[in-house]
Amino acid sequence: MTFIKTPVKGMRDFLPKEMAVREYVLSVMKDTYENFGFQLIGTPTVEHIENLTSKQGGENEKLIFKILKRGEKLDLENIQSENDLVDAGLRYDLTVPLARLYAGNMNNLPMPFRALQIGYSYRAERPQRGRYRELMQCDLDILGEKSNLAEIELISAVVTFLKRLNFKSFTVRINDRRILTRMIEVVGLPEEKQEDIFIALDKMDKIGIEGVREELLKLELDSTKVDAYLAFFANTTDFATFCEQIHLDNDVCIFMEQILDNVKKVQDVTLVFDPTLVRGMGYYTGPIFEIAADGLASSIGGGGRYDTMIEKFANVSVSAVGFSIGFERLLLLLQERDFRVPVVKEKKAFVFQNDEKLSELLCMVKDLREKGQIVKVVRKSKNFKFQRESLINEGYQVEEW
Amino acid sequence: MTFIKTPVKGMRDFLPKEMAVREYVLSVMKDTYENFGFQLIGTPTVEHIENLTSKQGGENEKLIFKILKRGEKLDLENIQSENDLVDAGLRYDLTVPLARLYAGNMNNLPMPFRALQIGYSYRAERPQRGRYRELMQCDLDILGEKSNLAEIELISAVVTFLKRLNFKSFTVRINDRRILTRMIEVVGLPEEKQEDIFIALDKMDKIGIEGVREELLKLELDSTKVDAYLAFFANTTDFATFCEQIHLDNDVCIFMEQILDNVKKVQDVTLVFDPTLVRGMGYYTGPIFEIAADGLASSIGGGGRYDTMIEKFANVSVSAVGFSIGFERLLLLLQERDFRVPVVKEKKAFVFQNDEKLSELLCMVKDLREKGQIVKVVRKSKNFKFQRESLINEGYQVEEW
Repeated sequence: MTFIKTPVKGMRDFLPKEMAVREYVLSVMKDTYENFGFQLIGTPTVEHIENLTSKQGGENEKLIFKILKRGEKLDLENIQSENDLVDAGLRYDLTVPLARLYAGNMNNLPMPFRALQIGYSYRAERPQRGRYRELMQCDLDILGEKSNLAEIELISAVVTFLKRLNFKSFTVRINDRRILTRMIEVVGLPEEKQEDIFIALDKMDKIGIEGVREELLKLELDSTKVDAYLAFFANTTDFATFCEQIHLDNDVCIFMEQILDNVKKVQDVTLVFDPTLVRGMGYYTGPIFEIAADGLASSIGGGGRYDTMIEKFANVSVSAVGFSIGFERLLLLLQERDFRVPVVKEKKAFVFQNDEKLSELLCMVKDLREKGQIVKVVRKSKNFKFQRESLINEGYQVEEW
Repeated sequence: MTFIKTPVKGMRDFLPKEMAVREYVLSVMKDTYENFGFQLIGTPTVEHIENLTSKQGGENEKLIFKILKRGEKLDLENIQSENDLVDAGLRYDLTVPLARLYAGNMNNLPMPFRALQIGYSYRAERPQRGRYRELMQCDLDILGEKSNLAEIELISAVVTFLKRLNFKSFTVRINDRRILTRMIEVVGLPEEKQEDIFIALDKMDKIGIEGVREELLKLELDSTKVDAYLAFFANTTDFATFCEQIHLDNDVCIFMEQILDNVKKVQDVTLVFDPTLVRGMGYYTGPIFEIAADGLASSIGGGGRYDTMIEKFANVSVSAVGFSIGFERLLLLLQERDFRVPVVKEKKAFVFQNDEKLSELLCMVKDLREKGQIVKVVRKSKNFKFQRESLINEGYQVEEW
């Protein structure tokens, strides 16, 4: 019999120690977000292939694990392409299922709706450190809230969660998709090159302003306009002045100012306006944000407003803002800090050898377990010394019975 | 754009109310089993196709959702059979991944190892009430424990869990695979018809002893031997006498007596020896058990000893006993009883309309959230009466700010 002992490529088994950390982090997350009025929802891991290939997923659509049709539906004689073979796939994110659930159940959900979804997504990426083919995602979304109360509450919730995990030094950067497009517009750079310009801008923290300039010139843009564009990034600390120099629509300016103002007043957190923040996905329509541990380039999470996406699925216009935590990256960070799950329950192991007295022992143990202790009953082995040491290493107080 | 609003066939979305029940039941389960020293492990949903088709899964192997190969590995020009198209599948149970995890990590795990695994499995069954294509499974296993301490602790743990959910009237039935085979042997029924005889016997509670007799005679068995066989089931209340009449090996008899004796002394539970209990899977080697709510035919869970299975995967002999809870069925039962999640946190909603005072409100709210309350901040809508009622229906105390 062929039997493979390792997990499939890019996926992982979790032994008790790792699993305990994951469980603890999830419990803090659920508890925190619940305090903010978010409600857990659940969607299947398997999604219609039509929904997964609806062009909302960007690059992720190339990485779908597809599921073979079954029974008569699978006709091996007449295959034109891959599409004839499959009818479903594993979800690559939680946004498509959220949109589907919301579209199908709008009338049975609160308005606005504060949703928390936690689950695995699947991407057939080339495996590398910190990138897995099965990855836990934790998505917080507020649907149906037009005002920036959504942004304020989402950022506050995520900040509160990280603080409860004892994260201290991290920074939230915020920008607005409308500011990004306005900057291009005001200097007269061509709108059709917008996405390429954003890709260059996104590299600012890695290659600096001179590097971005080179990248932009490669796009065959007018160098005077490029310089005018880059001049905007010279001084961004005063948001009001920044808005003036790009002649930003006053509503957009106030929308952002209120977010900055309220979050800073309520949360003890470093929140900075950063006009170089891009975020990949093209579906964002308003504020976008990212959270990163200080000193580390890669973010722990991010999100933004996507007011037009739900409409494509639900045929009704619904405002939406989401904030997703990169759970696997967060776990890596905790691991590097040698994070330990707080010990709450006392752990006792009773080693016995007399079967006559077992029921008596079990009755006593029952009481301890009812009191919330973790109690193991263990049959004494020939090598008691080793047995005892192993139990102590597991954190048990050992008692002979 | 084609977009399908319903979940894929046989799978479900969970709205907040259902999700809250599921989460609560899982939290009680995790907490209870942790008290018994069980440790959570995790395995990927996706498993090697070789492991899924290794003939351990019985009928489930026909129901696998298979995953298409990707990239160059998928050669649509040269397809002989389905097998050429796939390299993985969704797991149909948690036992195969448990065996794989254990085989690959034995030396890093406690001995004996008390494992709890909770996760979704997938079966392409014809959907019907209470049967889903994506189903939550909760498996409790003790690996490496030869003695009946494993059975005693497993049954106790499951009984304790159900009691903590306020289940009162349920019965645990227990039998032993060795008793089933011994009964056939002692009356001289043919060993090769054993599985067919068990299938007939399994129907005892539905068709009665006369019905089983008819089914057995259809197997062209000697009617005198069939009568002798069925006579065993006439009086089973005294286990010692029962053992005598089938000349059961003394060790097997004592093994069972100790389980009955200890569980009854420790747990306030109806535990009965039932020689008609079969359990489907052929891999069981010793005691088997099933737990059912009184008055309902279908069980909530079951399990047994399977001492030879891990060896097939790990190449080392490892005793194993498992007890699996049918989570979806348990949820159905709770639903029928109109089960409600105990309210622990206070819920408050603050409705505001003055943006000037928002940060003040958010600061006050922050304190309440830190104290563990669920607090929603809501912008006042034009139809405040409706808004207020909706919030009250959600369980919130509503306050205008």
